[in-house]
Amino acid sequence: MTAEELKQYLEERRLLIDEALDRYLPGTGDSPKEIHEAVRYSVFAGGKRLRPILILAAAEAAGGQVEQALAAAAAIELIHTYSLIHDDLPAMDDDDYRRGRLTCHKVYGEAMAILAGDALLTQAFILLSTAIPPCPPLVKGEWGDLEGVPGPEARLTVIQEIAQAAGSKGMVGGQVVDMLHEDREVDLPTLTYLHEHKTGALIRVCLRVGGILASAGSEQMEALTRYGERIGLAFQIVDDILDLEGSLEALGKRAGSDLRKKKATFPALLGIEESRRWAHRLVSEAKQTVAVFGDRGVALQAIAEFVVMRRG
Amino acid sequence: MTAEELKQYLEERRLLIDEALDRYLPGTGDSPKEIHEAVRYSVFAGGKRLRPILILAAAEAAGGQVEQALAAAAAIELIHTYSLIHDDLPAMDDDDYRRGRLTCHKVYGEAMAILAGDALLTQAFILLSTAIPPCPPLVKGEWGDLEGVPGPEARLTVIQEIAQAAGSKGMVGGQVVDMLHEDREVDLPTLTYLHEHKTGALIRVCLRVGGILASAGSEQMEALTRYGERIGLAFQIVDDILDLEGSLEALGKRAGSDLRKKKATFPALLGIEESRRWAHRLVSEAKQTVAVFGDRGVALQAIAEFVVMRRG
Repeated sequence: MTAEELKQYLEERRLLIDEALDRYLPGTGDSPKEIHEAVRYSVFAGGKRLRPILILAAAEAAGGQVEQALAAAAAIELIHTYSLIHDDLPAMDDDDYRRGRLTCHKVYGEAMAILAGDALLTQAFILLSTAIPPCPPLVKGEWGDLEGVPGPEARLTVIQEIAQAAGSKGMVGGQVVDMLHEDREVDLPTLTYLHEHKTGALIRVCLRVGGILASAGSEQMEALTRYGERIGLAFQIVDDILDLEGSLEALGKRAGSDLRKKKATFPALLGIEESRRWAHRLVSEAKQTVAVFGDRGVALQAIAEFVVMRRG
Repeated sequence: MTAEELKQYLEERRLLIDEALDRYLPGTGDSPKEIHEAVRYSVFAGGKRLRPILILAAAEAAGGQVEQALAAAAAIELIHTYSLIHDDLPAMDDDDYRRGRLTCHKVYGEAMAILAGDALLTQAFILLSTAIPPCPPLVKGEWGDLEGVPGPEARLTVIQEIAQAAGSKGMVGGQVVDMLHEDREVDLPTLTYLHEHKTGALIRVCLRVGGILASAGSEQMEALTRYGERIGLAFQIVDDILDLEGSLEALGKRAGSDLRKKKATFPALLGIEESRRWAHRLVSEAKQTVAVFGDRGVALQAIAEFVVMRRG
């Protein structure tokens, strides 16, 4: 996939996911309209939709259909958005801007932002329990171990894996560790643990959920999981580098905000060059891992590349 | 059931539920321990466990087993606890005490309290997707329409109903309306809407979940639902009356706190006597509704009685 093809692929997928999010979320005509306005303000704030795109790409790599994975993809984006709204609160990171727009609590007030986050997390589980189609993928893959039907047991597994990745031993746990180490010296193992939980767990589960919904076999699941772990960490390292180097135009928040808050970052611990080398190594491992999918894995290959090459 | 028998029944059930909660929640040895401490502080803060008790009682009334419903009962209590933690936050109701103890954010700080609520809501869905036994009830009831096995589809339905009851068109929606009407005149339809969502939706779903897990037929489901709607509203009316009349000893928060915050209440709109009559009428309707369960419904009958007679 060329850089131009990837750009087009990401844009098409983003539109597909935005359309699904719009369809699955309550409208601003639904009562109470104030909460649905706040929810939609944050969901449609111009995200890259990387996580849901990963779910769709994983499902396709494992021989499944995009339609089968679209509801789970939307649900993950809702969980991601809830985590951003709560992270931005005054009691947490106290951020006024995200992606160049005022954060939810700056527009709707703190109470509404807390409730919008709560509503989004809950809405994700409404989606996961109602909107994943029970029908089998139409095309059986070349892999012998495709079971075909993501039946109710598979859907329960998806709910379980996503809840665990988002919970106190996953994303929330990472946020706790982040908070506890603000203004404190952090060593590399702690920083790695922090990001493997705060951002890594949710990215990792995207790959697994795509696999489960495509009835992937255990070898495929393992490849997807390892890919997810590597690009999750690489994504965070690059985020740290971008934060250090970035500008208001590129990132939508003031560059160097980690530094201002004295947050530990990979470049601060390892230097920029060493951090960049590490990110490249992780991405190269991730790409090797999904070579097993052959042509069906080209999107995953290109996305891994994008993670280290992106400028915002 | 005599008052003494009910007291013993409620106490036995409370212990059973506390034991389940202790088993299902991560321990304070689980990393990061700070969040699990905060979560357990709030979950084990001396609640009556009314909602989980209702799930168990509904399951038994419909001919099911307590064991089948215990995980869902625990999950509902986690969701109830999360809602209390977030409601107590400075940006929301700003309460320092609940049930005579300092609230979560007073002990662990605002950021940790936000995250503890998030963790509890997520943990509820971990429980619902993993801990409901797939096995059928051992004893088939006298009702012809018992299907026997709460299979994966039934478990997905339980997740869906609970998520919808807790979400932006249920509990969170009620909290939004409550917040938007603080310091404002509220009429009876608005106040009723508010409570039917803020507290009513979760109580109602307890009865339905108990029924679903006991493979209740549609007539039974309807009886349980109507019972839940009536005692949910009665519970809130009595809460308003108790808040007006109560004392620090009985309620664990300063009496009249609704009044201090100028919150609309049923006694403020209708007077205490008319409010009390309404609560009694609702409870009497609730009891009639579950007469259909005969002897198996005695606990539901007694709990309805308890809702209007309680003093705290």
